[in-house]
Amino acid sequence: MSHAFRQDSPAVGNDAEALSSDALLALGRAARQAARAVALAPSEVKNRALRAAAAAIRDRCAAILEANQLDVADARARGTAAAFLDRLTLDPARVEAMARGVEEIADLPDPVGRVLARFERPNGLIIERVATPLGVIGVIYESRPNVTADAGALCLKAGNAAILRGGSESLRSSRAIHGALAAGLVAAGLPPAAISLVDTPDRAAVGAMLAGLDGAIDVIVPRGGKSLVARVQSEARVPVFAHLEGIVHVFVHRDADLDMAKKILLNAKMRRTGICGAAETLLVDKACVASHLAPLIQALLDSGCAVHGDAVTQAADARVTPATEEDWRAEYLDAIIAVRVVDGVGAAIEHIARYGSAHTESIVTQDAEAARRFLDEVDSAIVLHNASTQFADGGEFGFGAEIGIATGRMHARGPVGVEQLTSFKYRVYGAGQVRG
Amino acid sequence: MSHAFRQDSPAVGNDAEALSSDALLALGRAARQAARAVALAPSEVKNRALRAAAAAIRDRCAAILEANQLDVADARARGTAAAFLDRLTLDPARVEAMARGVEEIADLPDPVGRVLARFERPNGLIIERVATPLGVIGVIYESRPNVTADAGALCLKAGNAAILRGGSESLRSSRAIHGALAAGLVAAGLPPAAISLVDTPDRAAVGAMLAGLDGAIDVIVPRGGKSLVARVQSEARVPVFAHLEGIVHVFVHRDADLDMAKKILLNAKMRRTGICGAAETLLVDKACVASHLAPLIQALLDSGCAVHGDAVTQAADARVTPATEEDWRAEYLDAIIAVRVVDGVGAAIEHIARYGSAHTESIVTQDAEAARRFLDEVDSAIVLHNASTQFADGGEFGFGAEIGIATGRMHARGPVGVEQLTSFKYRVYGAGQVRG
Repeated sequence: MSHAFRQDSPAVGNDAEALSSDALLALGRAARQAARAVALAPSEVKNRALRAAAAAIRDRCAAILEANQLDVADARARGTAAAFLDRLTLDPARVEAMARGVEEIADLPDPVGRVLARFERPNGLIIERVATPLGVIGVIYESRPNVTADAGALCLKAGNAAILRGGSESLRSSRAIHGALAAGLVAAGLPPAAISLVDTPDRAAVGAMLAGLDGAIDVIVPRGGKSLVARVQSEARVPVFAHLEGIVHVFVHRDADLDMAKKILLNAKMRRTGICGAAETLLVDKACVASHLAPLIQALLDSGCAVHGDAVTQAADARVTPATEEDWRAEYLDAIIAVRVVDGVGAAIEHIARYGSAHTESIVTQDAEAARRFLDEVDSAIVLHNASTQFADGGEFGFGAEIGIATGRMHARGPVGVEQLTSFKYRVYGAGQVRG
Repeated sequence: MSHAFRQDSPAVGNDAEALSSDALLALGRAARQAARAVALAPSEVKNRALRAAAAAIRDRCAAILEANQLDVADARARGTAAAFLDRLTLDPARVEAMARGVEEIADLPDPVGRVLARFERPNGLIIERVATPLGVIGVIYESRPNVTADAGALCLKAGNAAILRGGSESLRSSRAIHGALAAGLVAAGLPPAAISLVDTPDRAAVGAMLAGLDGAIDVIVPRGGKSLVARVQSEARVPVFAHLEGIVHVFVHRDADLDMAKKILLNAKMRRTGICGAAETLLVDKACVASHLAPLIQALLDSGCAVHGDAVTQAADARVTPATEEDWRAEYLDAIIAVRVVDGVGAAIEHIARYGSAHTESIVTQDAEAARRFLDEVDSAIVLHNASTQFADGGEFGFGAEIGIATGRMHARGPVGVEQLTSFKYRVYGAGQVRG
């Protein structure tokens, strides 16, 4: 781990040791330099580094778990919430999953060098648009130590350098995992600075990264809760791939098959309530209220989901509590749903435009024209017809792994897999052509 | 021109009338609202607007020229340089070219709705990545009135709203042209706010646009000289599609055909010296100095190009003056070239990495392997083999028209035509699938 910025690994529990801003800028320059090397590295070299990193994660499992136990003990001593502790805690199965995840990234096709377009001009010039790496990607995440491995591996696969800054509570875990990644890089002859860890619990380092480390960072990917993403989006001076929230809608159109609607709705809301693709609002077409509303609401309530509904929905079941304006903007991430009756597909689209977060929405209908209109007019990263919103996931899209889901319109949108971590350039092949 | 923010067209020569920041924010909100309408407009409606705008430009030719004459008279009275006056001045032929340019944009294929990828998942889901508009594009340009028509038309074609802010010296011309565009929008039933003109000479409006007009602007495109682009790049809080400069290299490899090298070099440097794809530095392979250097230099000198060369180049012809470190970083935009002898393709790549601007570079060689290495390893938006760098142009690439050339790696790179003014979303077609 020659690039871990300090060769030793002192305990850092509460010492809040800062990296000077000079040291951070030097880290940025080293990452930029390393980016050039990994950009040109052949697929087999990048994959060798990833496989060696996976092996090193397995070899160092005991050390990683030991570092993690110190992080967990400190967090527990501070009285940290159980959900946080669960995300922070590693065990042998989770370490193995991390190693396997890195190997799966090695197994993906190389996104660099893909010929995205090729055309010949009347003058005989052949022009190719070919995928290239993006450069240096800054990843800012919370205390999920596995992100160190995931994010570092994804960036490397796409020929990018990564600058990783994990939550301070998981710093020892991240450092141990990062050491394995750096060992993989070295084993393949790649510069260890290709995956750098900002090895300090000092939060000022995040500010320096958001400012771009003097041009060293091309894009920032935040991974974590809404407050982290909000800070990154408001402060970053470089592009950000992120979604702030997933206020995800299921619209049950008048021509929906009721059984299908029920199945999709329950899966979209209840399969896992805490993920960004979980449904938060159900819109029901006024034209099918009599047949569809009560059965849908009852299925939700019976599965343990609280329902905040408009007046019509309240009338459908006594267990429904009144929805307020805030419910339409709520990302519950819990077993709660807001339900509203709307007058047709146009009104559903309007509701989503007004209250949605441009993440993922689904229409359930047997009417192809209504589906076409919904899919065309809803301006979200992912729009589905007759399918659960919980498919909003890079793995489910076949991307292998994702660094997150983006709701912006610039560069990457939807699940951000290795392909979206690339840019492109034009190669032009001539035979002496000059411009007239 | 109902959205020109003021219904009248008072003379504004030196009155520096400011738009309040509230008025600018309202303009941004109106553009955002209009963006939704044009995003959903069918191709034929957008094209009808463009053709009507072209007709209106022709119909209003006299009024446009009259407005332009006032701008030119003011500029001349201020003692403006001849080159500036030339760019500012319209005549009937230039107005006709503007109208024809708008019609050519109407004739392009619609970039919105293209299916960029389509794949089926094992669970039967069919996933399409489909092109969508970007949103609202801010265009900041200098006193070339024709940009008003070009940029507005390109943004509209790609389903975007445009907020145009031209140079204050051409405000009356821009206003007259913008009036024709707005008439085209209205004729097609589109909101005139889809192409808005920031109708004030007050430079503070540029700052407000660079701040994004409270989220109303998705991307900024600066069109103009280096100082404009530098300001936009350093101050913008939203993504920017631009190139700061074109320090463009031609590398003559030892296996170059001398006649071809001469022809490409003269075209790359001298066809037009003031465009961003004009060559600024010639690198000559040490291995062909004896055969190639003197003839290449002499061809340049004989064509009227000054040569600033390194020691070897100075020895090749008495007319060569010494190059300094500054010459390797110079964007002359004039009949001057820097010439350096380098030791092979690796050294050429290193020189370009150190001094280049990631815009456009060409290698001249008969050696396919040297060409492959140059095209792979040079990290520029456009890399050419045996072709002139002056092909760095959206029209030459077959994009029809370009809003500029970008050297960043985010979203758009190289010539930015209508396709690069789009984003994408995922449409997912199911038959009741839920996630396991």
